[in-house]
Amino acid sequence: MIIIGEKINGAIPSVAEAIANKDAEHIKYLAKSQADAGSHFIDVCASTDVEVELETMKWLIDLVQKATDTPIAVDSPSAQICAECLKMCNKPGLVNSVSMEGDKTDIIFPAIAGTEWECVALLCDDSGIPQSGEQRLKVFAAIMDRAKEFDIDPSRLHIDPLVEMLCTSEDGINVVLEVIREIKKQYPTIHVTGGASNISFNLPARKFINQAFLVLSMGAGMDSAIINPLHKHMMGLIYATEALMGDDEYCINYINGYREGLYGPGK
Amino acid sequence: MIIIGEKINGAIPSVAEAIANKDAEHIKYLAKSQADAGSHFIDVCASTDVEVELETMKWLIDLVQKATDTPIAVDSPSAQICAECLKMCNKPGLVNSVSMEGDKTDIIFPAIAGTEWECVALLCDDSGIPQSGEQRLKVFAAIMDRAKEFDIDPSRLHIDPLVEMLCTSEDGINVVLEVIREIKKQYPTIHVTGGASNISFNLPARKFINQAFLVLSMGAGMDSAIINPLHKHMMGLIYATEALMGDDEYCINYINGYREGLYGPGK
Repeated sequence: MIIIGEKINGAIPSVAEAIANKDAEHIKYLAKSQADAGSHFIDVCASTDVEVELETMKWLIDLVQKATDTPIAVDSPSAQICAECLKMCNKPGLVNSVSMEGDKTDIIFPAIAGTEWECVALLCDDSGIPQSGEQRLKVFAAIMDRAKEFDIDPSRLHIDPLVEMLCTSEDGINVVLEVIREIKKQYPTIHVTGGASNISFNLPARKFINQAFLVLSMGAGMDSAIINPLHKHMMGLIYATEALMGDDEYCINYINGYREGLYGPGK
Repeated sequence: MIIIGEKINGAIPSVAEAIANKDAEHIKYLAKSQADAGSHFIDVCASTDVEVELETMKWLIDLVQKATDTPIAVDSPSAQICAECLKMCNKPGLVNSVSMEGDKTDIIFPAIAGTEWECVALLCDDSGIPQSGEQRLKVFAAIMDRAKEFDIDPSRLHIDPLVEMLCTSEDGINVVLEVIREIKKQYPTIHVTGGASNISFNLPARKFINQAFLVLSMGAGMDSAIINPLHKHMMGLIYATEALMGDDEYCINYINGYREGLYGPGK
């Protein structure tokens, strides 16, 4: 499982405060602790006003790179900002994200063509998030056509099928699970990713929904996730699910992860 | 999800002690608390020497029936004891279990023919637990043939595909998940059940394996489980998984279960 540590995001009040106060130590702590917990990428999202976003991103990226060698996931709603931020990074990481909205692929795909940068691609376009599985797969096909134009191998893409909140769904996540299975069938080396918390919006005891969502999605083929790697119960379930899906022969990673304290004793 | 409460089992040391000391209150407490936690059946298993098993089962069954109206799952390795115990029950429950071993179906299927009793059926025969999915499905076909002879509707059967411990598996639970999917495809109204703890034998932090196993199995079609209904994290994941699989429109059961305290706040 590819873990994208989500904790450096200005939408989180304590991070917004650290940004406002130029609290470098807090940002470095978040970077280091997420790297130590097994993150493969450290997501960096300023969530500031657009006028100060680029300078904030630079400040954050510099701090993360002082704290850890773990690659960065450059996260901005602006494709232009993403493209600028790539140049600030010491090594290839992950762009978060493109979609078929506007000129996103026109800006980001050329910027990562011929590099080792990976990229999150959301299955939406200018008409929003498609409702049916078929429509999402059409957006997926369009993204893959664009990626091919720039010779970006499927193994560099993390497709986010975009899960909407469960409380207003009539069919649960069945459509999303079908989309994940179909994507992995078409491109076995592609990654499927997603956040694990939008799904539980407006529901009580959100952790159960988030955890069961992640396990079910991994069962369908999700192999990348934007999560809090310091959440030990979630991490324990991820290690367990990999072992159950046959991706961890004789449970070696599960047992080592336990010994290294990457997850807790279980509740 | 059909919950079969597992806590009245003489293999559990505190229950063995209660049986030895004739501690009726402890047994009644286990029955009542599991019923209150949402069990659909209360499993009763003496796990004593065979000479005293029938009288122990009678003592246990009488106590459970004093404590709750929830139907009983009569649980014995002996088909003859199961058949005797059915007569002690005030209302139809669940027989745990038949398989294609020896004369089990010859004894139990006639005993429940023409009644409303349900029955757990394990996918094993006189040669043990089959290794391949195909072989398990052959045992399944044999059980269904026997059930048909006695006019036992598939909706009265809970098929246990028998999961072996993960630590010695090379392929995880993929074979079992395929078997579950195929069984539900062949008989949409049949139930698929299982225990959720053998799987984690010999591994650390077993709860994570048990929980992820149950969520993945539910994703494949499992709709019945022999578990501890007082384990709030497990129950929270079960409610969440039902909502995610589209079996709980607008999450009504999930929200009500939370309000009624059937599971915790989440960790």
